[in-house]
Amino acid sequence: MKTILYISASARSFSENGGEHQSISRALGYEFLSEFKKHNNQVEVIHRDLSINPPSFIDQAFIAASFSRGELSESDKLALEESDRLIKEVELADIIVISSPMYNYGMPAVLKAWFDQVIRINKTFSFDLARGDNPLRPILSGKEVVLLSSWGEFNFRKGEEKSGFNHLSNHIEQLAPYMGASHLHEIASEYEEFGDERHEASKVNAINEASLLAKRLAQ
Amino acid sequence: MKTILYISASARSFSENGGEHQSISRALGYEFLSEFKKHNNQVEVIHRDLSINPPSFIDQAFIAASFSRGELSESDKLALEESDRLIKEVELADIIVISSPMYNYGMPAVLKAWFDQVIRINKTFSFDLARGDNPLRPILSGKEVVLLSSWGEFNFRKGEEKSGFNHLSNHIEQLAPYMGASHLHEIASEYEEFGDERHEASKVNAINEASLLAKRLAQ
Repeated sequence: MKTILYISASARSFSENGGEHQSISRALGYEFLSEFKKHNNQVEVIHRDLSINPPSFIDQAFIAASFSRGELSESDKLALEESDRLIKEVELADIIVISSPMYNYGMPAVLKAWFDQVIRINKTFSFDLARGDNPLRPILSGKEVVLLSSWGEFNFRKGEEKSGFNHLSNHIEQLAPYMGASHLHEIASEYEEFGDERHEASKVNAINEASLLAKRLAQ
Repeated sequence: MKTILYISASARSFSENGGEHQSISRALGYEFLSEFKKHNNQVEVIHRDLSINPPSFIDQAFIAASFSRGELSESDKLALEESDRLIKEVELADIIVISSPMYNYGMPAVLKAWFDQVIRINKTFSFDLARGDNPLRPILSGKEVVLLSSWGEFNFRKGEEKSGFNHLSNHIEQLAPYMGASHLHEIASEYEEFGDERHEASKVNAINEASLLAKRLAQ
């Protein structure tokens, strides 16, 4: 049995019956999950739709509670309840699939809110000053993380012209170890704001890649 | 008369009377504003505290309304009301001061939520496919943008070892043109999570730099 945690972050929706202004990143997520299920029927999908249920912003109570030592007070437990629930889903997952558009060259704020709830001391990373200048260490391991994204512009891939301006993929790649993955699988549809044939070709290509990756990970 | 828009993003608070676990980024903001007022009493400060009043996440209604052409419907106007208000503050400002910690190597989600409300077509950028592969152009100009930040770790400055892992400053620098600035002034306090003498020295140094920059911009 495989468990997939599917995190979707687009403000746009997606319907398999088609329609105008559908989310491309959600279309990629739909393709990935459908294809995965075709090749592996021993799968449970937990869908965390950040657009429908946006995570809370972390606050002072969250920070105080997450760094508190010893027995947690009732108010500490309350301050961490949402984070506990979201981290539990990450722990349960074999594969974490994030479908997310690039907004203003980075993550949608809902996705950053999710990461800020999930990356937590003694849950997803340990901290020890005895390790010297690199005191953080991820706790989880053995998971696959997949990012399915849609970009208005183009050339944001590694080695491409605007790679340094990509604060979506590069940032998530950096955070992937805290989700238990040593590597980020990434598929992106480009050129959305141009609406031209390059966009159509890129979208078709991304859907094919999502399908192939799903098939591979389903085995 | 100068108008400063002061955006504060830390989940921690700050009191000028001192106390435990105070926000360092807010301490830098306090220093900057106090020093600025000492050298220029013709100043109005608009404080947008994102921790107290977190911006809404953008949603499908926001996207549809911001891209709609011609006369806006009443529901479009409602969907853009918060964004209109936040953009008005940016337009009014001569200097935009952002005090923000680095959370998980990037912006706190509240700050990203603010950018997603403020970066808007025909308000802070124009879009024209006749410009070819770079269709976006900033609309505002002539402003100064200052980022006052606090980092748990260190060596995230340009040219330093972990510069490529800094999705706070590099990202905001990239977005600064949409706030009307061609350049980002940046001051950071480092080593917060080490709590050692390097941290103390870095904090003192950042406070001095904030003070000097305020004096310079007040003239």
